Amino acid sequence: MSKLRLKISVSLDGFVAGPDQSVNDPLGKGGMRLHEWVVPLAAWREPHGLVGGEVNESNAVVLESIANIGATVMGRNMFGGHPGPWNRDKPWMGWWGKNPPFRHPVFVVTHYPREPLVLEGNTTFVFVTEGIEAAVALAKRAAGNQDVTLGGGANVAQQCLRAGLMDEMEINLVPILLGAGERLFDGVTDLGGLELVRTVATPQVVHLKFTKRRK
Amino acid sequence: MSKLRLKISVSLDGFVAGPDQSVNDPLGKGGMRLHEWVVPLAAWREPHGLVGGEVNESNAVVLESIANIGATVMGRNMFGGHPGPWNRDKPWMGWWGKNPPFRHPVFVVTHYPREPLVLEGNTTFVFVTEGIEAAVALAKRAAGNQDVTLGGGANVAQQCLRAGLMDEMEINLVPILLGAGERLFDGVTDLGGLELVRTVATPQVVHLKFTKRRK
Repeated sequence: MSKLRLKISVSLDGFVAGPDQSVNDPLGKGGMRLHEWVVPLAAWREPHGLVGGEVNESNAVVLESIANIGATVMGRNMFGGHPGPWNRDKPWMGWWGKNPPFRHPVFVVTHYPREPLVLEGNTTFVFVTEGIEAAVALAKRAAGNQDVTLGGGANVAQQCLRAGLMDEMEINLVPILLGAGERLFDGVTDLGGLELVRTVATPQVVHLKFTKRRK
Repeated sequence: MSKLRLKISVSLDGFVAGPDQSVNDPLGKGGMRLHEWVVPLAAWREPHGLVGGEVNESNAVVLESIANIGATVMGRNMFGGHPGPWNRDKPWMGWWGKNPPFRHPVFVVTHYPREPLVLEGNTTFVFVTEGIEAAVALAKRAAGNQDVTLGGGANVAQQCLRAGLMDEMEINLVPILLGAGERLFDGVTDLGGLELVRTVATPQVVHLKFTKRRK
């Protein structure tokens, strides 16, 4: 059965984005530091159209986290932070460019209905206005025998955790403080049966893999 | 030179104590879950006068964290949460009983002057009203060639981090959520040169050791 899997980078003080987030600075002040560990990796460079890169323990974790994924669910901010209803004449294309790195259907949880956005490289953004559970159900159907990844941000991750929808979670804990910003676990009071099953550590990042307890 | 070392258990969502802390429930709701990993260990049982216990990777980390310690610094709440001036006729003895497990001088940061409290087993509580830097300096002098451990709680740890006093930090990350309570890093915006140098992981706890970057 298709699983819902989250991979997300978090600071030691629990933030997935720094303070003062905006459309021009979606990760907030200092937020880019959460992703410095991943950018040099071969597993990050390849889907972004770049050759080469480091192949280390973190690379293996990233490869695992992107393997067997047939669809993505993300929040509206992660798609592109558009603040209002879609403009039909000049539609907002999101942050991902003409050829996004997903290469499968991406279900965007939003309040604003919009026709699907079909882009190059087999990525289609589908806009879902019926809430997170509907988006996850549609994504699982689209994924078929493969899994669904929750792209973020924190808000949709929190909704999934509170609804008990999460089957697997890879927390990439970055040993820095951001001091303020958006917290991954705000408003979430328990892990809903997710248990720590594996830790892979480097000086730059500690990968904490959680899976749902078997009933 | 004597180092200031912190060891502290923290939930995945960053709390060192749960919500609704009180004199009768100093760890707050759910806070005891942060310490379940340590109680079965031989290294915890021995200083508490108990025999036996588990000897595993976490035990080695705990042994390291209590080795070569000549003095402790702690906040007033950790000593005993006494809410007001000391009563000279019937002095509050703290939470630690007649024979506390420290067996060295303990410097308590407080607003209330009090004579030192000499207890069994070589533990003396010394009450310092001149602030955290004075307490650390006194503790380092008392420790001689040994190090000083910061016992907690979060408030004195934050003061030390903000003042750049911390030389070493062992974060015992417990893979649970408390949802609310007291956060370790509240009001701290950077690690002041502390870098992740070692990770030891078990399903119950992930030990993250930080040491100060050499200049």
